[in-house]
Amino acid sequence: MIVRNFREIQAEDVEEGAHEVRIRQVISEAEGAPHFVMRVFEVGPGGYTPQHTHAWEHEVFILSGSGDVFSKHGWQTIKSGDVVFIPGNEIHQFKNSGDRPLEFICLIPTERVCRL
Amino acid sequence: MIVRNFREIQAEDVEEGAHEVRIRQVISEAEGAPHFVMRVFEVGPGGYTPQHTHAWEHEVFILSGSGDVFSKHGWQTIKSGDVVFIPGNEIHQFKNSGDRPLEFICLIPTERVCRL
Repeated sequence: MIVRNFREIQAEDVEEGAHEVRIRQVISEAEGAPHFVMRVFEVGPGGYTPQHTHAWEHEVFILSGSGDVFSKHGWQTIKSGDVVFIPGNEIHQFKNSGDRPLEFICLIPTERVCRL
Repeated sequence: MIVRNFREIQAEDVEEGAHEVRIRQVISEAEGAPHFVMRVFEVGPGGYTPQHTHAWEHEVFILSGSGDVFSKHGWQTIKSGDVVFIPGNEIHQFKNSGDRPLEFICLIPTERVCRL
């Protein structure tokens, strides 16, 4: 068993189409997790993730802050306690519309290559 | 894409070895999630989950409250922002040692039977 605070994990800048976004890989293959990866994203005020599509799904839990998520149906507001399920192959983007960090958990399956 | 607050989802009592524990299935096969299931647990003051072992792993994020988690190494304190990785086949138990609800996300793989 591994127990630690997510803020102890080094955050890395997300490049390629993102603005003011940092990611922490909190539970992954490095910890021995066999099936899915837990990451925590921090999006600064005015920041956004890339608008993109990929074959694998996202399971998201909004921890703090507020913002909007884009889908094929347009933008929807998101806030602390909201959960977002993004099926594979659906376009999506997150942006921070507030004045403090937008933090969310976002999980992906480990074997992403097999599902392309 | 599905967006909703986790508190909108009906909580169910957890029986069998648990005390004062409720669970919400927030993202599962019912929402079309193919690989892993997001649940949110709420453990009331004095409550605990069963001390047990199973073949599949848990990926846990502590949302609020405080408590302790049991492993083969004994009890460790947990609080908001802590992440816990419990590999398959490791004994574990959560308890609330505070005076307000202990809430945590706990994810499991969907195909649990295949891994027994």
